[in-house]
Amino acid sequence: MAGSTWGTLLTMTTWGESHGKGIGVVVDGCPAGLSLCEEDIQEYLDRRKPGQNRFTTKRREGDAVEILSGVFEGKTTGTPVSLLVRNTDQRSRDYDDIKDLYRPGHADFTFDQKYGFRDYRGGGRSSGRETIGRVAAGAIGAKLLRELGITVTAYTRAVGEVEIDETRFDLKERLNNRLYMPDAKAALRAEAYLEELMAKGDSAGGIAECIIDGLPAGIGEPVFEKLDARLAHAAMSIGAVKGVEIGSGFQAAKSVGSVNNDSFIKDSKGSVAKATNHAGGILGGISDGGQIVMRVSFKPTPSVSVAQKTVNRRGEEADAVIKGRHDPIIVPRAVVVLETMAAFTAADLLLVSMASRMDRIQDFFRGQQEKGF
Amino acid sequence: MAGSTWGTLLTMTTWGESHGKGIGVVVDGCPAGLSLCEEDIQEYLDRRKPGQNRFTTKRREGDAVEILSGVFEGKTTGTPVSLLVRNTDQRSRDYDDIKDLYRPGHADFTFDQKYGFRDYRGGGRSSGRETIGRVAAGAIGAKLLRELGITVTAYTRAVGEVEIDETRFDLKERLNNRLYMPDAKAALRAEAYLEELMAKGDSAGGIAECIIDGLPAGIGEPVFEKLDARLAHAAMSIGAVKGVEIGSGFQAAKSVGSVNNDSFIKDSKGSVAKATNHAGGILGGISDGGQIVMRVSFKPTPSVSVAQKTVNRRGEEADAVIKGRHDPIIVPRAVVVLETMAAFTAADLLLVSMASRMDRIQDFFRGQQEKGF
Amino acid sequence: MAGSTWGTLLTMTTWGESHGKGIGVVVDGCPAGLSLCEEDIQEYLDRRKPGQNRFTTKRREGDAVEILSGVFEGKTTGTPVSLLVRNTDQRSRDYDDIKDLYRPGHADFTFDQKYGFRDYRGGGRSSGRETIGRVAAGAIGAKLLRELGITVTAYTRAVGEVEIDETRFDLKERLNNRLYMPDAKAALRAEAYLEELMAKGDSAGGIAECIIDGLPAGIGEPVFEKLDARLAHAAMSIGAVKGVEIGSGFQAAKSVGSVNNDSFIKDSKGSVAKATNHAGGILGGISDGGQIVMRVSFKPTPSVSVAQKTVNRRGEEADAVIKGRHDPIIVPRAVVVLETMAAFTAADLLLVSMASRMDRIQDFFRGQQEKGF
Amino acid sequence: MAGSTWGTLLTMTTWGESHGKGIGVVVDGCPAGLSLCEEDIQEYLDRRKPGQNRFTTKRREGDAVEILSGVFEGKTTGTPVSLLVRNTDQRSRDYDDIKDLYRPGHADFTFDQKYGFRDYRGGGRSSGRETIGRVAAGAIGAKLLRELGITVTAYTRAVGEVEIDETRFDLKERLNNRLYMPDAKAALRAEAYLEELMAKGDSAGGIAECIIDGLPAGIGEPVFEKLDARLAHAAMSIGAVKGVEIGSGFQAAKSVGSVNNDSFIKDSKGSVAKATNHAGGILGGISDGGQIVMRVSFKPTPSVSVAQKTVNRRGEEADAVIKGRHDPIIVPRAVVVLETMAAFTAADLLLVSMASRMDRIQDFFRGQQEKGF
Repeated sequence: MAGSTWGTLLTMTTWGESHGKGIGVVVDGCPAGLSLCEEDIQEYLDRRKPGQNRFTTKRREGDAVEILSGVFEGKTTGTPVSLLVRNTDQRSRDYDDIKDLYRPGHADFTFDQKYGFRDYRGGGRSSGRETIGRVAAGAIGAKLLRELGITVTAYTRAVGEVEIDETRFDLKERLNNRLYMPDAKAALRAEAYLEELMAKGDSAGGIAECIIDGLPAGIGEPVFEKLDARLAHAAMSIGAVKGVEIGSGFQAAKSVGSVNNDSFIKDSKGSVAKATNHAGGILGGISDGGQIVMRVSFKPTPSVSVAQKTVNRRGEEADAVIKGRHDPIIVPRAVVVLETMAAFTAADLLLVSMASRMDRIQDFFRGQQEKGF
Repeated sequence: MAGSTWGTLLTMTTWGESHGKGIGVVVDGCPAGLSLCEEDIQEYLDRRKPGQNRFTTKRREGDAVEILSGVFEGKTTGTPVSLLVRNTDQRSRDYDDIKDLYRPGHADFTFDQKYGFRDYRGGGRSSGRETIGRVAAGAIGAKLLRELGITVTAYTRAVGEVEIDETRFDLKERLNNRLYMPDAKAALRAEAYLEELMAKGDSAGGIAECIIDGLPAGIGEPVFEKLDARLAHAAMSIGAVKGVEIGSGFQAAKSVGSVNNDSFIKDSKGSVAKATNHAGGILGGISDGGQIVMRVSFKPTPSVSVAQKTVNRRGEEADAVIKGRHDPIIVPRAVVVLETMAAFTAADLLLVSMASRMDRIQDFFRGQQEKGF
Repeated sequence: MAGSTWGTLLTMTTWGESHGKGIGVVVDGCPAGLSLCEEDIQEYLDRRKPGQNRFTTKRREGDAVEILSGVFEGKTTGTPVSLLVRNTDQRSRDYDDIKDLYRPGHADFTFDQKYGFRDYRGGGRSSGRETIGRVAAGAIGAKLLRELGITVTAYTRAVGEVEIDETRFDLKERLNNRLYMPDAKAALRAEAYLEELMAKGDSAGGIAECIIDGLPAGIGEPVFEKLDARLAHAAMSIGAVKGVEIGSGFQAAKSVGSVNNDSFIKDSKGSVAKATNHAGGILGGISDGGQIVMRVSFKPTPSVSVAQKTVNRRGEEADAVIKGRHDPIIVPRAVVVLETMAAFTAADLLLVSMASRMDRIQDFFRGQQEKGF
Repeated sequence: MAGSTWGTLLTMTTWGESHGKGIGVVVDGCPAGLSLCEEDIQEYLDRRKPGQNRFTTKRREGDAVEILSGVFEGKTTGTPVSLLVRNTDQRSRDYDDIKDLYRPGHADFTFDQKYGFRDYRGGGRSSGRETIGRVAAGAIGAKLLRELGITVTAYTRAVGEVEIDETRFDLKERLNNRLYMPDAKAALRAEAYLEELMAKGDSAGGIAECIIDGLPAGIGEPVFEKLDARLAHAAMSIGAVKGVEIGSGFQAAKSVGSVNNDSFIKDSKGSVAKATNHAGGILGGISDGGQIVMRVSFKPTPSVSVAQKTVNRRGEEADAVIKGRHDPIIVPRAVVVLETMAAFTAADLLLVSMASRMDRIQDFFRGQQEKGF
């Protein structure tokens, strides 16, 4: 339990540092027979890579994933799928400027306190590159869900104070702007805001939103392994996340019961549905068959080039001089991290939920016997 | 992994339904030698009981905890501590009105979808009474922390739109008003707001805040078992919670890096500290030695007496008629649930953190040998 | 992870000491809809009770189980099943003779080393009464398996040097003798051997065997969660067990490949079967559809009335004087403990195995949708 | 929980197939500051490699381990240590002869039943090469223990009927013969026996023994996470293992209490010790400070070249023709697998045990504070 494994039946164990030999993940418990190739995973990794747009196209190459195990003749075998992304951009640059420094907003100080020392090169294990393992694993979770008709989609909801306007919401539009915002106008305004901050050497925070469509009702376990509790855990475990909301979230605190309650209705097919979705698709920690909605707050990128005061390893006051180019905002690249973590978490709980009912278990084993289990 | 166990080294396993024989919890992994008696736990349970104030004094009795195991001669033995609270208020009332009804905002529908049927009496397992187990277990976590000089405190931050004013913040004041608000004026306004809603048969949401003081730096594991991720999981697993924030939370999304970053400084004792605390005491998922700050959003009590439309078990449209008296707001009674869940979670991760460093492990075993381990 | 929880999807968490208020267990993850009442569990508990035969009928009463939660209208609800057995025979006898003594073969010394002190009354947590929780939980696992056509049976294979003769093996005969031996002649000889030892104040060891019939092929996970590894863990966790064998066990070490290998054949129904069963029904850690066979070695009861030398808590040499009546052998009462632990473990891995194959998962969810999941 | 992760605080997650790209393992929870390099691990891997002696020197190269993460400047950082061994001997040979065959004694049939298909090349995941991950991870556990003065040693106790003679026992001798037997004469006889079997195309089983010296008293958790239960699980999870004994093991079943009980005595240093060690160093599942003794039975190598009957994937009868050269016995190469699994398991429980006592926890955190935690 040193914290690098996530999941119950479907698990991922990530490893790797920013400037070590590579980053990787072992996905265990992936059911056998899922069609899987490197492109399935690369597609997701490419979305979190730096330099994916007109502003930063220079580092297009890199972060190529290799499947090392668990896939045979194009299908998962049920045994661990090991994925490796070699670090290629390991310039032997000089880290003397930061190796003793406790950069504000970074984990330098806390790693030193916990472990006595740290791999300071590029942030080591606390670097954003750590998310490569999550995204690669989560891509498998997303593929598993798609085979069952379930889709997970995340996008940028807000950049600083610039939030999308629900009336202009267009999910496909997120693919047309570099900020992954499903509102073209908001994206333009957000880009202008970011340009302004970049000119000052400062950075912005923002909000990402993630939706899950097609998840059947009944997923999530009561009490501690509620679907929302697991999703919150998954989201908050992503670096720089400071808040998580499900459905009406913090707005629910200001609402009243008669408004916030979602009435049950019969939908056009005669199934039970909800008239509204303040619940965000989860009641009592269990999916209700509606759309799952989660929002996540990211703090501004801590690496800023404006002057900052800090302290060093020896307890002396020092200037935090952050060199190099840094993303002015984390959210657009983190969108795919949130999406894949949510997918993986939902897929895991979906598998767990198969054991909830005796009648379904009997059907399952009777069915296997008939087919010659 | 059916969801009723929480923790890694220090675990709680809760059980029980609203109208079954009782509610209980098994705490495993509690270190031996902690002084513990029923009063230590009862004190916390009394804070979550109904009828603790001038408005609702009639049901003062009840919810008495019994320690069934794991304590000998006033001290924990290191073996499981089993705690039992018998349900006494099990009037054989008629549940025909709700047994087939899917009450809006409740888990009736999702439990039926997951399990095929449910114990409908008083909400069964999804009742607020489920939290008795958490509070009883968490009281032990809180006591363990106190022995190490660590205190956990939660209070009501907002009731609907009425929020406390930081300039009037007075922690002790929370004990003087029935809403557990650390601001007397805000409490008065909040009470007026609640009276108004009660008159209409409606309910309010609100925000609880939890702080941890004295937690050493170095607690929390990187990646998936970050302290904030675990706290978020713990908080979101409490019924009716829809959002969680650490430190600046959703405000961080609107801030800029140069402001949101907390500069490291040397404090008066020459130790490393932070000039501000937007981080809420956690950097990279690991405690930084500062105050841990978490805020949690609760939705309005779903049981309201205003008219609501819904659907029943047979898929027919029906009126949701909620009888009986219900709390107009969950937050004041949930404050102790949040506090104890946070304490338990922090205590667990604190024990886990003992294994982080080889030098400390060597000291530990060398020390035991010298004492005649 | 303080060691009192067992299982992955179907879990048991046991608690209680010999002379505390009671012994109990929380079973979590039991699928909803299993018909369950106290008699289902009591039947198993009665088999481990003392005084079940002509020699020791005096303490027939006692060890009555109470279901505290998780069952509604005669069926499990999918939420935790809490089971309680109150300790009734808590005579306030004087424990001064053993409270400072390190009894040979007992856990007095190791508990003191681990925890600093111990509940010395009747062995506390390390008493044989601890198995009440396992048996009660395992009875639920056994019932779950029976609903799927799977039966688990354990019996005494050997008492000291007296072993059953395979040519006289008659499973039903185990119910006719107080030693649970499926061979009437061996039982007679074993009883004579035990009488002889009892006259000397000494005790015997023995071997229990457990078989599982009807378990489908495909249960057990490769590498660390192999079915045999889990069964061995479960068996070795029972007090006094010193060895575990699967199939040909230690005989396999003396055999040769051409003999020990079980040839695959087609059985009368055209299914794949094995000509022999040296494997004990498990290949590569996964059930092969044949009978599961496990043998377990129990050490002699450590409480003997013959004179023994030992040391006390203060490190002084002392005589270990063991008063009271003790079973001259553990095996006959432990048979049901082994049987229920095996049942619970197999049931857990059976549920886990439902998530092994994508095609079955798709069938499962498609089937639910058609039925209106 | 798909079975490829082992441990609680110190965990290993293994992956890889015989003829895939490689075999690897992620070790999480290794305390920071342990000096570690590839040679530390290679030394153990070399002991399990094929071709380590005069009979089979041809394939000396290969199985070189690469540390991919978690080590910085020669020391572990506390973050996951990822280890990779590339498969080099992946000749594109023709597997048509075995791809549809259910080889007796192998997991071909059970993998097909569980997963619907399998990677048949060289046994895939169920190959003996899977143990590379365990050995590499276990080497780290062994190093961690050595830093605390604890050593783990395994050797061959028996080859078929040829067992070592206790009176000639010489631990160092195990390094002088290719069978790792601590008795030169027994080794000679065993070699002769193996030559005889090889001439017939048959194979032998055997017994390995593992001892742990220097483990402090107090390691292991009561009930389900007993030290012996965990060691049995670890051992039985190794392919081809069919039995596990602790201390007197199956002999205890034939003994009597007055003989099998180990008297406590005061040793020359005035500490509590035991006069004998039938317990194998474990009482009540907790280490007693004496030598831990475990014996493990291995079945004969299932790959034999003598004629065998079997069935194929289509249910047709077929001849199992096993080509290629195979070890005539598994034990000598498995000795290091047992040793490293035992080391890893003991190291994990040792870390867990640090949280057992409140007084030690207080000392620990007080000590850190004084040093400026």
